[in-house]
Amino acid sequence: MEYQVTIIGSGRVAHHLTKAFRQAQLVVTTVNSRTLKGLPLECDLYIIAVSDSAINEVSDKIAKVNGIVVHTSGATPIDVLNSHTRRGILYPCLSFSNDVTVEYHTIPFTIEASSPNEEFVIKNIASRISSNIFMLNSQQRAHLHIAAVITNNFCNHLIALANDYLTQHNLPLEILEPLMKQTIEKAFSISPDKAQTGPAIRGDLQTIQHHLSLIDNNNLHEIYSLITNSILKRYNIQKI
Amino acid sequence: MEYQVTIIGSGRVAHHLTKAFRQAQLVVTTVNSRTLKGLPLECDLYIIAVSDSAINEVSDKIAKVNGIVVHTSGATPIDVLNSHTRRGILYPCLSFSNDVTVEYHTIPFTIEASSPNEEFVIKNIASRISSNIFMLNSQQRAHLHIAAVITNNFCNHLIALANDYLTQHNLPLEILEPLMKQTIEKAFSISPDKAQTGPAIRGDLQTIQHHLSLIDNNNLHEIYSLITNSILKRYNIQKI
Repeated sequence: MEYQVTIIGSGRVAHHLTKAFRQAQLVVTTVNSRTLKGLPLECDLYIIAVSDSAINEVSDKIAKVNGIVVHTSGATPIDVLNSHTRRGILYPCLSFSNDVTVEYHTIPFTIEASSPNEEFVIKNIASRISSNIFMLNSQQRAHLHIAAVITNNFCNHLIALANDYLTQHNLPLEILEPLMKQTIEKAFSISPDKAQTGPAIRGDLQTIQHHLSLIDNNNLHEIYSLITNSILKRYNIQKI
Repeated sequence: MEYQVTIIGSGRVAHHLTKAFRQAQLVVTTVNSRTLKGLPLECDLYIIAVSDSAINEVSDKIAKVNGIVVHTSGATPIDVLNSHTRRGILYPCLSFSNDVTVEYHTIPFTIEASSPNEEFVIKNIASRISSNIFMLNSQQRAHLHIAAVITNNFCNHLIALANDYLTQHNLPLEILEPLMKQTIEKAFSISPDKAQTGPAIRGDLQTIQHHLSLIDNNNLHEIYSLITNSILKRYNIQKI
């Protein structure tokens, strides 16, 4: 028996999950979250892939369907799906864009389920895309989401600020691409503590002061100081 | 005629440059920066690869050599090499570790030289390793170094803080590896502004407040708030 999956939503997560499941030969029905036109009343798995604030409303509107209902949000507890006895979470811990290809088999899926029966089905379906599956409850998923924000969202923002600074001085961001790829490889292969380099961990206060004197943007100045002090503190070096 | 290169120093940069030039079939002499034992008096290029604070002293101690003298520091101006008329910079904008393999042909080298003659030689020698070469003066190199600190050092530190947070909640850092690799690929392929995702750019103040309520480490709390506000401000969203 082949699993039948319905994906509700038309955003980036819905788009990529539809593509990934179809590549894996599953039968996928896609449904608009507003009209719910064509919603099947029976299906193995209904995936609500809409913005966090809309999940509860969509869940309530499809209260009559017969099947497991999951959402895909990192930040939203399972109980927003309380109109369904058979419910769960299928959170892909990756950031999707419409114009960037994703290697679906690398997606880390975190799964939560209302009972072992639902867990079995959700896991089986997720494993058609990726073998990188973690069982996390809603609290653990909230913690993971915080760590994902700190690493993905904040590192991306630091690159945006560095890009502003380089542009201001007529330098191209691309010079930093090999360094940044290496940063991630090193942090995950030898641990971020072993991978830490730079003026702060060396206690090179002269370079730090020189950098601060060159940064004329107040916001960047404040972020540079705070993170530098955090590194100095972590490795027991005197604060600037 | 094959170029002769002398590398002075025994740290990570010296180790990797020696290996890279030897793989490229150049004749490399390595010299201890303290004893200077075996220092050739004639050589095409002397590379001082020592800590920033020691460059000037080593440069003065080898004042009599006949050849171009360069250092490899991102943060140090060319004039610390003033005992040499033929001088320059060969700064590999990458972070080296003893236990991590580097794909040498991807190294971005930034070069500075006291005259076009020296520039020609340094460029030729660097291009034996990598074709990713940029001509930058000392001021531009200082700016690039700041951007490298903000991206490499600070992103690595954010991963260290996220790792602490995950460990505190018994979650493995490895879940985030695909996300972080994708973060870098997206930032450099579509630009960090287009790649920005997360609660801050969505203006999702409820998730942000929830995250702040879960973070009990003061240092991480402060960093989370500051960077979140920086993202909110950048995209014209009301501050928390």
